Amino acid sequence: MNLRMIHPLDLRQGRVDLSHGAGGRAMGQLIAQVFHAALDNEWLRRGNDQAALAIDGARLVMTTDGYVISPLFFPGGDIGSLAVHGTINDIAMAGAEPRYLSASFILEEGFPLADLERIARSMGDAARAANTVIVTGDTKVVERGKADGVFVCTTGIGVVPAGIEVSVERVRPGDRILLSGSLGDHGIAVMSRRHDLQFETQIMSDSAPLHELVREMVAAGGADLHAMRDPTRGGLAATLNEIAGQAGVGMRIREAQIAIKPAVNAACELLGLDPLYVANEGKLVAFVAPASAATVLAAMQRHPLGEDAAIIGEVVADSRCFVQMTTEFGGERMVDWLAGEQLPRIC
Amino acid sequence: MNLRMIHPLDLRQGRVDLSHGAGGRAMGQLIAQVFHAALDNEWLRRGNDQAALAIDGARLVMTTDGYVISPLFFPGGDIGSLAVHGTINDIAMAGAEPRYLSASFILEEGFPLADLERIARSMGDAARAANTVIVTGDTKVVERGKADGVFVCTTGIGVVPAGIEVSVERVRPGDRILLSGSLGDHGIAVMSRRHDLQFETQIMSDSAPLHELVREMVAAGGADLHAMRDPTRGGLAATLNEIAGQAGVGMRIREAQIAIKPAVNAACELLGLDPLYVANEGKLVAFVAPASAATVLAAMQRHPLGEDAAIIGEVVADSRCFVQMTTEFGGERMVDWLAGEQLPRIC
Repeated sequence: MNLRMIHPLDLRQGRVDLSHGAGGRAMGQLIAQVFHAALDNEWLRRGNDQAALAIDGARLVMTTDGYVISPLFFPGGDIGSLAVHGTINDIAMAGAEPRYLSASFILEEGFPLADLERIARSMGDAARAANTVIVTGDTKVVERGKADGVFVCTTGIGVVPAGIEVSVERVRPGDRILLSGSLGDHGIAVMSRRHDLQFETQIMSDSAPLHELVREMVAAGGADLHAMRDPTRGGLAATLNEIAGQAGVGMRIREAQIAIKPAVNAACELLGLDPLYVANEGKLVAFVAPASAATVLAAMQRHPLGEDAAIIGEVVADSRCFVQMTTEFGGERMVDWLAGEQLPRIC
Repeated sequence: MNLRMIHPLDLRQGRVDLSHGAGGRAMGQLIAQVFHAALDNEWLRRGNDQAALAIDGARLVMTTDGYVISPLFFPGGDIGSLAVHGTINDIAMAGAEPRYLSASFILEEGFPLADLERIARSMGDAARAANTVIVTGDTKVVERGKADGVFVCTTGIGVVPAGIEVSVERVRPGDRILLSGSLGDHGIAVMSRRHDLQFETQIMSDSAPLHELVREMVAAGGADLHAMRDPTRGGLAATLNEIAGQAGVGMRIREAQIAIKPAVNAACELLGLDPLYVANEGKLVAFVAPASAATVLAAMQRHPLGEDAAIIGEVVADSRCFVQMTTEFGGERMVDWLAGEQLPRIC
């Protein structure tokens, strides 16, 4: 994690603020100074969103996420389907096949059982649709006012196909940067519901399981598929900066290649948001060696979840780890971390 | 799950209450009617606290738990060490060796970073002491008043030794019931801190990782070690009733064999609690075929965490799945589920 231009956390007097959960630089700093310092090990140091484990000859990945999204139900999904998709996607980003999930629920006293049942059914449907199973779980209840309806933590285990090694440290200068589709749908769908905004076109979350798209990409790219990540909290900007810092490279992207739906663009203008920083839940960025970039792109475009895929730029040598963008008007712009919180509780 | 004498949940108008998280009959009902109905699969139907998975020849178990304990720091531990121990223990209860853990944090805005660091260090220390690694994690932040300091969800993966099959459906009439030590320490330690009670003897939580004790039990009992469970929420009473219902058997236990420390007994009287229903975090109950019961007991007593182990009763044929106790005075008493909430947020 590149933590340039930011003061160390004050671990004596400091307090958690919303930026520590926003997927940006402050969160990276909290993770580095508090969690990595206390739990230091080779898996956390790698900085992937999932850990690769070799157990008795099996090559597995393990990933976990907490979901605190508000509101719980939004156009295109709910906290249940989101939790399943998010965990499947973090597994898929290692090139792995998702298999088994666990689900832990923290419930607030007074939460309607009908809503809980709807969420549980949505999780079951999402898991079955992706050919995965929620094999174990837990339920805790806290007093009214000590939580916010329901929080869900999902953890997943997946299996890595033989010969596949998809990890951020394989990103290198020259790699092409592929984006699977348009940006910002999830964040804008949630924000519209939260603020009860009406647009001409209903904007739906892109929440979806990406493992089948990834399977096609793995088949097409093989060892040339270096790394993947889903641009969730903090959007594409945070994801690219995170990977640039972890891999010690720079990136150059082209705004003209980045798809954003007109309705999302309009909503972003209204809300004062930059779509590069808005969360997605059904998109991925891939880093592919130049020789295989066109093949992987074609495989993505053949899949419904990759129809709008494009090569949006390339990795460059840059010890400062800058992400720079050529704008549609031909100018140059730094795509930096967002300093603070943009959209709280978006996932 | 035996749900006799209880009305079905009202899934239209009903609401979550604290009893749904208390480890008793109401929680069992919520899990059955909401979660098992929506997620139905062979693993959940087995009713173990962990799922046994066969992946590419490896025999694994996976378990998850959310921790919402209040207060976060208590005599003998904190939410961090508790989360690690609890997950290790759920793995160990399958006779498995814990290997890899994940940790997901839900933080309330304003939570002191110093407390978070203390919790993270405690988790790291507990994981290292048990030769396990926290390989992946997640951090979310919610607004002030939407959580209670910090909630932690831990998930664990363990490896089952060849030839070992420890699962609740193996419990059968004749099995001896072994308890590893005295009851109620954790619950009373937490309650004393919560209510700022002073006792002559400081009561410490028994929070501890049980996998090494289990390793000795597996070595001593082999295939005669039928099932194990740690009596956490709802205490020994809930655990025995749960297993009786799942295995379709009855149980007879003897009060005289059940160890309870004098200070815990005194505190229970003061607080109006029955130690059979108070949570433990470093104890286990095992179901062992009669031929190996003495050998397994001796192995337990040789381990520091099983010094006070005893055979407290046996499994009997009983289609009503009753748990009955011979009291110290020679009487008979039903040990039923507790109907509602005894101690909220004890883990």
